[in-house]
Parts: sequence; structure tokens; C-alpha cells
Amino acid sequence: MSSTIRVETITLGDELLLGIRENSHLTYLGSQLAHHGIEPAANLVIRDNPNDIKDFFSEAWKRSDLVITTGGLGPTTDDLTRESIAEALKEELIYDAEIEQSIRQRFQQLERKMPEINLRLCHRPKNAEILRNPYGTAPGLFLQKEGKILVMLPGPAREMHPMFEEQVIPRLQTAGVLPEIDCYLQLRTAGIGESDLAEKVGPILEDIPGIVIGYCAHAGLVDLRLSSLDSDILDEEKLTKIGDQCREEIGDDFVCFGDRSLAEVIFRELRSLNQTLAVAESCTGGLLSASFTEIPGISTVFHGGAVCYHNDAKVQILEIPEIMLEQHGAVSEEIAIAMATSACEKFGTDYGLSITGVAGPTGGTKIMPIGSIYLGYASPLGVWTKKINLRGDRASNRRRATSAALDWMRRKLRKYKIEEVFAAAEVGNIEL
Amino acid sequence: MSSTIRVETITLGDELLLGIRENSHLTYLGSQLAHHGIEPAANLVIRDNPNDIKDFFSEAWKRSDLVITTGGLGPTTDDLTRESIAEALKEELIYDAEIEQSIRQRFQQLERKMPEINLRLCHRPKNAEILRNPYGTAPGLFLQKEGKILVMLPGPAREMHPMFEEQVIPRLQTAGVLPEIDCYLQLRTAGIGESDLAEKVGPILEDIPGIVIGYCAHAGLVDLRLSSLDSDILDEEKLTKIGDQCREEIGDDFVCFGDRSLAEVIFRELRSLNQTLAVAESCTGGLLSASFTEIPGISTVFHGGAVCYHNDAKVQILEIPEIMLEQHGAVSEEIAIAMATSACEKFGTDYGLSITGVAGPTGGTKIMPIGSIYLGYASPLGVWTKKINLRGDRASNRRRATSAALDWMRRKLRKYKIEEVFAAAEVGNIEL
Repeated sequence: MSSTIRVETITLGDELLLGIRENSHLTYLGSQLAHHGIEPAANLVIRDNPNDIKDFFSEAWKRSDLVITTGGLGPTTDDLTRESIAEALKEELIYDAEIEQSIRQRFQQLERKMPEINLRLCHRPKNAEILRNPYGTAPGLFLQKEGKILVMLPGPAREMHPMFEEQVIPRLQTAGVLPEIDCYLQLRTAGIGESDLAEKVGPILEDIPGIVIGYCAHAGLVDLRLSSLDSDILDEEKLTKIGDQCREEIGDDFVCFGDRSLAEVIFRELRSLNQTLAVAESCTGGLLSASFTEIPGISTVFHGGAVCYHNDAKVQILEIPEIMLEQHGAVSEEIAIAMATSACEKFGTDYGLSITGVAGPTGGTKIMPIGSIYLGYASPLGVWTKKINLRGDRASNRRRATSAALDWMRRKLRKYKIEEVFAAAEVGNIEL
Repeated sequence: MSSTIRVETITLGDELLLGIRENSHLTYLGSQLAHHGIEPAANLVIRDNPNDIKDFFSEAWKRSDLVITTGGLGPTTDDLTRESIAEALKEELIYDAEIEQSIRQRFQQLERKMPEINLRLCHRPKNAEILRNPYGTAPGLFLQKEGKILVMLPGPAREMHPMFEEQVIPRLQTAGVLPEIDCYLQLRTAGIGESDLAEKVGPILEDIPGIVIGYCAHAGLVDLRLSSLDSDILDEEKLTKIGDQCREEIGDDFVCFGDRSLAEVIFRELRSLNQTLAVAESCTGGLLSASFTEIPGISTVFHGGAVCYHNDAKVQILEIPEIMLEQHGAVSEEIAIAMATSACEKFGTDYGLSITGVAGPTGGTKIMPIGSIYLGYASPLGVWTKKINLRGDRASNRRRATSAALDWMRRKLRKYKIEEVFAAAEVGNIEL
């Protein structure tokens, strides 16, 4: 059923083609559909041009079972999706009093006069169903025709996302396009390549009827997705059991079930231990802090960070002795450790994590080439440091150094469980 | 000529369709082509599937004058672009000894044994020209046929970007697809909408022969692009003059010529004044620092930042009196100012910039709803604070608060030129 459904998405917008904006609609719809076991066959980014819209849509409609469009539903002259697609489908556009009423209501709520231009939005293809838009004016459209489904969504993400999740997914499930029971498990790993991971879990996953296996590598992580498209053959309980076996086999490279970020995994671990964290960073210049602070509610664990970009800042804020900087250089094991311990001390936290390095494009030397990064980690159980060597450009080195620090801390936290270590230390059995 | 060239780009990769990775190839190629006055007509993201590649490519080839593909040129079994497109074009694949030699050389340099699988890369469509790949193994391909051009590029960005800029652009210029003389000017603005900007510069740009005008809004900025596709009619000098007139008309909302970030504009301004900067941020949690530290060489100006996410951190790192936090609350004018001045003091810098606010999704109150952000600015000429109200989700509020702080500082820096103010103060003529 759904495994053979062909889906194409059409994203409208000149700004995407001009390289001005990332196509986040594809990222969003792709991951939403993947979560339901469907990989879109194609995404077409096209201009707000009526002929292009008609042509590309007609081709996609011929090839596919489900076509989803985003953008071009607004009231202005370059919003042409509704009209162009209605023409391609030979659907009459009819006036819908309900739409007008909801738009007028919205403007009343906002205490603004409704520009007459918005009346364009009140037309819909005769056989299309309206998708309410509580966060904007342009409604979405849902059309079943010729055994196929067309979904037209507004462009702004904050209107499109809730519309897709609350109104489109249930309709696709009712139509039998998406499986009603979501039987899907994701294992996130770090520090292991896609092919090595496949080799590790291969024997476990061999010959399991009804399983669909997918690997996805991104930003230093590899996700393993196990889906069952028919829960009569493979149900959630069985899938969970298989997931646990894989987790065991993957070992330390296993990050979590689901799609938590590395920072979120650390956050949850520290929260459960009732411990706090601060960071100090140089070349990553705020990215490490930002990885933590993107998580809502993290202030119970994460107190803050010192971005000590200039050497003076390392002296002034972290009170690292100048002589130490002179002796070892800012990019060194010693300074990484001093930054981590000083972060603990200055912010009054239990744990400290630090990054210092040469991000490039300049500042490299023969001994300390661009991409040389030192990490520092301070914990109630001791301090550690680690060197990594990266080979990207400035932006990629900054990103990767951040991920490497997070993954390193995650491993350390898992390895040295604080209660276990204390218990072991009491019986004279500790080895750190 | 080039204004009527139709370009389509084809990006291969399942991970894009699964929403795992952003389509940065489109962003890159789109902005590269836009820089040469060409807007791609479409971008097709498709799977590594030979039938899809053949079908989508054949359609694109029919419609377009130039087709650019990325990805799928590697040695593994899911790298099918070369074979599938050769088949679609009825081009014979021939063995090219030169490719083999360069691949063997690359492996020798890396001191690694070449896996035999790489010999697949040694085949090319008979009429295609090889594009060297100094940063990887898979060469690119350049093919002229039926009055059209096909460019096939490898997937990794660090291989694809230099290949496109150094080898593809010159070939497209020679072929007459891209104009030889780049007559192109971009004005970046902030704080003004696209339509208001168009209204402002409209009278200046009216009736100028040979001018192509484009507007692009992104992340709070609006870019105005003025291109001349025929320098006999409109040359660079004339374009510069027109640009200056526009700049004057745009006034304070003008950010820069070109595509510098707001942080870079501040960096250049402070560098020219020989002044230094530190930041302090709460809800943006590192993003403000990261905006500055993404700029190479900024340590001469930017010393660092304090991410004071937890209230304790504001007390411990910035030494903001606890009683002040209790009296005014962490999200207030007073604390924003205290954070900015304390950043100056602690980091020993001339300027300080701060952000404190409620990013959401929780923590909002009736008086201080989610999206309430206070900015603080400390300078040798005095301190200022400003409130802004945002209405997005956590991620968008964090991003927008960061941009707002940067734009605000940029304006303040331009308004109060330090030498001018000092000169004015000397003659008793200052008004801050």
C-alpha cells in the first residue's frame, strides 16, 4: 500500500531558486513523510510562473499518487498556484462564502480592515475541500480526483506546519495513503559510518519479515530507521525488541531512540543526575552554547557559557593565567582543561565543557594546522582533554568541533555514571 | 541572450527527500547563477534511481538550454547519474585513460591503495569534456550537444564549489551563456519591506534602458539587485551611479553594497574606528556571539561574549546585583543595559551589546509575553536600550532577536560617528 505510493512535492518560490533561502519546506515535508514510511520521489522547486506551474504540476500529477504543493496561495498577483493548477486539472473555480467569512473574521480579530484583494482567496476548485488556516488568511486545499490526491498548502511555515500535521495527515490516513498505525523506530548513532553500522546490525535485521530498513547520515550522526508498514506482520512490540538488540550491538555509538540532538541527550542525562553545566569556547564562538540553549527549559541544567574569542577574554573572564597562555598557546590541552575547569568555577556548575582550536582560514601553523581542536571536560570525577583534527573550511570546522565536543561529553557521561563510580570508589574498586 | 537562457538544476540525493539534509546545492548554484544575472527556472530534487534520473533529465533537457546536475558521480552502486544520463542522451560511455591516471595519482598522494571500484569513474560520455577534481576522485563532466549544455558535478560541496567557479563559469562564459562582463550591483537593506523599498527607489530606476531589477527578501533583509546584461547600454560606472542614488534614497535602511552580514558591517565599522566589542546574551544563548565569530579575523574587534542563560550566571559572570534582578526581572530595560555595560567592563572593550528576553515556548506572562525582547547597547557615547516584540516560535524568536540586535547596533554606529560626535561635543553642539 503506502510503500508503493508515489509522492511528489512542488515548492514555489523565486527566492529559493535565487539561492536566497534554504528550501526548508522540503526538509519539513520530507521528514514528516519519512516518519510515516514514505519517501517522496521528487521535489520540484519552480518559479511563480503560471505556465511553469501548469506544466510541472501536470507532469507530477501524471506520475504520482499524491502531489503536495507549497506557496503561491496568497492574494497578490504573483500568487498563481490556485488558478494555474485548477486550469491544469480542468477544475472550475467557485466562490466559497465560508472562506470569505473566515477571512473577514480573521481581520476583525486583528482589528484591521480587510483589503479587497483578499477576496481572491475565496475561490476554490469545485471539488476541493478547504483546510482551515488559523495562523493566516489563505486556506489550504485538499482534492481527491482520478484516484489521486492533491494537497495545496500556504507558503509561510508557521501556517503550513500545523495545517499539515493537524489536517492533512489525518485525511491521508483516512484515504489509506498513510498507515493508520505508526510503527516506526529510529536509532540515532554517532561516531560510526553508515556501512559499519549496517555491518553491525545486519545479522540482527536479516530475515525479519515485513521490516523496512533505512540509513540516513547527517552532520556526523547516522540514523537507523526500522519501519513496519504492516503491523499484522511486525508490530510495535516486536520492533521495540529488535531495536533493543540493535542498541546493544551498537554499544557506545548508540545515542538515543528518536531524533534528539546530542545536546538534548546530555541535558536529559544531567537533569536526571541533578547536575549543572557551563561551557567555555573559543573557535566555535557561541555555537556550543547555542546547541544547548536551543532546548526549551534547559536553564535548570545549563547555566551559561563564556565565549573567549580573544586571548584577553580568556584572561579576563576565565582568569586563565597569562603565563599559561604564553607557555602552552591558546590551542593546547592545558588551556582546554583550564577553560573547562574555570567555566565550572566561574558559573558555579558541576560540569564544564570547553573547545579551543584553529577554525581557519588563517591562523594555522605547521605544528598546529587549521582544524586542530582541543576539547576539555571537567566533572566531579575528574578532568579530561582530547585532540581532534578536522579538515574542512571555517564554518564546517566550527560545526564539527561543536558536535565532537557534544559527542565526547555524551560518551563520558555514559561511561562514568556518577552514582556507580561513587559506589565503586567506596569499595576501593574505581578506575577512571 | 543570457536573459532568455533557461536553466534547470537537478540535485540527486535520497537524504534531501527524506528531510535529513538541507538542499544547500540549490542555494549555492542559485546564488552563483543569480550573480551572473540568471535565475534558474527549476530545481528538481530526485532519488538515486536510474529511471527517475533518465525521465527527469530527459524532460529538463527538452525544456532547457542548460542543465546542471549534482551528485551521483561516485564509484558505488547508487551512483547512477553518469550512466543514466548517457543513456538518456544516447551517448556512448568510453574509457578515458586520463581520468584513471588522475585518480591513481590522487590515491598515491593520499598514500592509499586505490579500490578497483574506482575504475567505474574512468568512463565518460564520448562527447563530454572532463572537469578536473582536485579535491576528490570523481571528475565533473561538461557536454555541449544539440545547441544545449549539460554540466555534471560531484555531490560533495568542497569538490563541487571550486569546480563550478573555476571551471564551469569560464566555460559558460566562452559558450556565450553567461555574460563575459559582470555588471551587477547589489544593495542590501534592513528594516524596510520589499514593496516599500520598491516604492522608494522606483522613480530612480524608471526608464533606465537595459536595467534588470530584482528584489529578494530573506531573514529580515531585503536585497535590491541591479543588473545590466548588456554593458554597451548600461556599464558598471553608470550602474554604480544609480546605486549611489538608490543608497541615498534608502537612507538608514541601507546596510551595504554586496552581501555582507549585519555582523560584518559592524565589524568593519568598529575596525575602522579601532574599537572593540563584547556581547552578553540570555535567550539567544550564543547566537549573537556566533554571528560575530563566523567572520574570519574578527578577534581584533570582537573579544568575546557571556552567555548568561541562568539568572545565577548574570550574577556570577556579569556581577549584576541580585537585587536588581529581583526588582526589575531578568527581562527588562535595566538588565539589558546592565548586561551591555558589564560586558564592556568584564571583557575590557569599548562597546557592549546585549539581548535578554523570553524566547518561548514557556516562560511568558501576561505582562511579558513570549517574544518580548530587550536589547542593550553600551558605547563610549552612552548607553541605550530598546524593546522589541516578536511573534514566532523559539527558534525564530532567537534568530530574529539576534538580527534585530545587530541591525540596531549598525544604525547606532552610523548615527553617532565617534569622531564627529567628539568634534561636535568640543564645540558644544552635541545631541545624543
